[in-house]
Amino acid sequence: MGPAGSGPPAWPSSAWAELGWLPAARGPIAWDDGPMVTSSPFAAAAPSPPDPSPELLARAAAVRRAALDLGRLANNERQEALAAMADALQRHSDTILAANRADLERAAAEGLAPTLLARLKMDRPKLAGAIAAVRQVAALADPVGRRQLHRELAAGLVLQRITVPLGVLGVIFEARPDAVIQIAALAIRSGNGALLKGGREAAGSTEAILAALKEGLAASLVTPASLEMLTSRQESLAMLKLDGLVDLIIPRGSNALVRYIQDHTRIPVLGHAAGLCHLYVDAAADGQQALRLALDSKTQYPAACNAIETLLVHQSIAPSFVPAASAMFTAAGVELRGDEAACSLGVSLSASEADWGTEYADLILNIKVVADLDAALAHIARYGSRHTDAICTDDATAAERFLKSVDSAGVYWNCSTRFADGNRYGFGAEVGISTQTLPPRGPVGLEGLVTYRYLLRGDGHIAGDYASGASLFTHRDLPL
Amino acid sequence: MGPAGSGPPAWPSSAWAELGWLPAARGPIAWDDGPMVTSSPFAAAAPSPPDPSPELLARAAAVRRAALDLGRLANNERQEALAAMADALQRHSDTILAANRADLERAAAEGLAPTLLARLKMDRPKLAGAIAAVRQVAALADPVGRRQLHRELAAGLVLQRITVPLGVLGVIFEARPDAVIQIAALAIRSGNGALLKGGREAAGSTEAILAALKEGLAASLVTPASLEMLTSRQESLAMLKLDGLVDLIIPRGSNALVRYIQDHTRIPVLGHAAGLCHLYVDAAADGQQALRLALDSKTQYPAACNAIETLLVHQSIAPSFVPAASAMFTAAGVELRGDEAACSLGVSLSASEADWGTEYADLILNIKVVADLDAALAHIARYGSRHTDAICTDDATAAERFLKSVDSAGVYWNCSTRFADGNRYGFGAEVGISTQTLPPRGPVGLEGLVTYRYLLRGDGHIAGDYASGASLFTHRDLPL
Repeated sequence: MGPAGSGPPAWPSSAWAELGWLPAARGPIAWDDGPMVTSSPFAAAAPSPPDPSPELLARAAAVRRAALDLGRLANNERQEALAAMADALQRHSDTILAANRADLERAAAEGLAPTLLARLKMDRPKLAGAIAAVRQVAALADPVGRRQLHRELAAGLVLQRITVPLGVLGVIFEARPDAVIQIAALAIRSGNGALLKGGREAAGSTEAILAALKEGLAASLVTPASLEMLTSRQESLAMLKLDGLVDLIIPRGSNALVRYIQDHTRIPVLGHAAGLCHLYVDAAADGQQALRLALDSKTQYPAACNAIETLLVHQSIAPSFVPAASAMFTAAGVELRGDEAACSLGVSLSASEADWGTEYADLILNIKVVADLDAALAHIARYGSRHTDAICTDDATAAERFLKSVDSAGVYWNCSTRFADGNRYGFGAEVGISTQTLPPRGPVGLEGLVTYRYLLRGDGHIAGDYASGASLFTHRDLPL
Repeated sequence: MGPAGSGPPAWPSSAWAELGWLPAARGPIAWDDGPMVTSSPFAAAAPSPPDPSPELLARAAAVRRAALDLGRLANNERQEALAAMADALQRHSDTILAANRADLERAAAEGLAPTLLARLKMDRPKLAGAIAAVRQVAALADPVGRRQLHRELAAGLVLQRITVPLGVLGVIFEARPDAVIQIAALAIRSGNGALLKGGREAAGSTEAILAALKEGLAASLVTPASLEMLTSRQESLAMLKLDGLVDLIIPRGSNALVRYIQDHTRIPVLGHAAGLCHLYVDAAADGQQALRLALDSKTQYPAACNAIETLLVHQSIAPSFVPAASAMFTAAGVELRGDEAACSLGVSLSASEADWGTEYADLILNIKVVADLDAALAHIARYGSRHTDAICTDDATAAERFLKSVDSAGVYWNCSTRFADGNRYGFGAEVGISTQTLPPRGPVGLEGLVTYRYLLRGDGHIAGDYASGASLFTHRDLPL
């Protein structure tokens, strides 16, 4: 994969290889719940998105107006809205489950793959779990209204920086009815309106869920118009042109979908990209601990983006570690692919150049023997996706160097890469894991759905007095 | 201007007008220093950027490698590098001034406009000021290494979120030699490498400055390769395809340039867009204070993005306020354009629909009489650019409603919009003023040039133990 991502590279990847410096695709988001259902055949030569219809513009503008009102509500008012959403889902459980059964029958008849059917399926326990999650999101700390800066600029002139909702989220996601509930709860909790486009296969379930959610909102201070469902692919594509009405696009889908969106919108995109994670077993590693970490990082949930694809092993520990790891992984059903040194220590398959840059999301693992920490760092810089990379060592100096040098959203010492997750970080619900450089980066929770605003309160202060020197700035920080 | 910005709108703007809801262009950045020098004729039908040459790739990769080293340096090491840069500029002052004189002569012979020549000119006091600014940037608080989060996830498993440099900045700017110095200082101070492309007219000055800066860096722990100059337009365009090597593009140029860049790169862009600011004079305003604020907000520096373009006046105060404002602004040489009610109160010219959405950046001001606060809010939502908007009132309830309701980066009460500025906010040097929704928003200082990284330190912790319930998360916040 070239640095511009999947699809035809913008220039020969050999040019990069020659440089000995090949950063992998640096897209924005990977998800913790495995490969996505994608029913969208976004080819490399896909056409431009269509222009929004007047009807779509009217609906989007209505959501934006509703979101401005929503953004002014107090914490408890938004919490009550979530409670009302949860209550309404409860009341309409039978309708939702019936709609989902119809979706499932249709999808099964169309031959949808079993794993996708499993995601599409919404039974009573799954719905109960989703409703409980809405109440949990209600209980999370309010991301809105936090004071990040408080400063007296001059006598009587006080600046504050306060978190505020983004406005309107545009969410495009796979055929998972529970995702509709989760995203709607996160949006309302953070004071944002949302334009939602779910997978085609889940259309009936999604409609039933949205009807319940809107009925719930109608019993609260939040306008039901804050949530709007897009039903056609044309509409979801035209959403890309709604600059000024949509503030952030969150695509939960294939890499191809995300690339297409990034290439066809000026709206910021919190998209899904590769999770190519490494564990480096240092010379000073505790071998038993390293084996535990490697096994958990690879097999605890191999389809997750925070599972490792490559194990880097210091040459001095390799003669003992690689055979032990080989035996352990083989017993665990993991296929190993090694470099020459690893193969000479018992790894049976040879890794190709492409393997070092492949996110298997499966029970396959590369093993490479490296000369030292620097070689490990160089390998990660070249093939990593800046997601999460870990070192196992008892040498604090080596560990701190690794923590300072790896340019990833998560850099770990003596723990599994599988901890890269919003819930495990204590964020409550998460939107996804961002591998883009700019914030929000890493696991993104509610605080990724807000921005800030500078409020300045004065008493007739004019800039001319400060430009002339008649008045002076004090720039004195006040308590937060 | 349609919601998709300048250039041919993506759909008929009449569609928006019919909705009664026309957000203005929501591009990212406006600059405080007036209209930019732009020598780039980026037409609407401009071709795609060229692919990077192997030579450009090699240079960009070298900057990235250098930036990784730079990012690991301590605060005082980066401060010393800035001191060395300042010293070297001092030593080579004569060479830089001579190169600038040659640039000026060439530009004058080519007929460059006098205002642009003034920006291009670098005399001894201007250079001394730029050198002093480098030392000031060195003295600013370090944006790198700040701990934003500190949390025990479980016994012995501790998460920290630490600010780190972005990596490599790609900066495209106008023919202003002092801007090269400023941007280089900000980049190195924040631990970032930079690919710089200055205006063609300043080529000689820029080369002399960069040579001095690199000589300075050579005397420090920062590799001179951290700063690299691009010399051709082809190179600066090809930079847009350097995903993975460049982390943020900062264009300082015309709106057309910024739009072109946004449309042709997946790299985040901190670009320049409209500053369409409003002052609303409420029913309960102190009339004398309102006049002072209006005059300062319009005339203190009319070319600045934070100057107002429209004055909104509550109908109950309009009969006294509008005639007084008319007299004051006319005396100050400001051309006024009013709605029907304002015209009936003494404003001589009639404002067209287009005028409400125009950033004059000149001594022209629209005046509109509104029925109430809600009408003012609706006007700002429709025509504002989410930059900075102010209310003048003695009614605290009205003021707080305005502060909560206006969706702009800066919302002010009883003070001039001209305070929207990084230096006035106490940020020291500023990169620009962002009008995008996502952070960084508003005046962007050094902290807009860093991101963060999650560091997790454990002692053999694996996720499986927490998934199984064998171990439990504690999620206990520790002191920052």
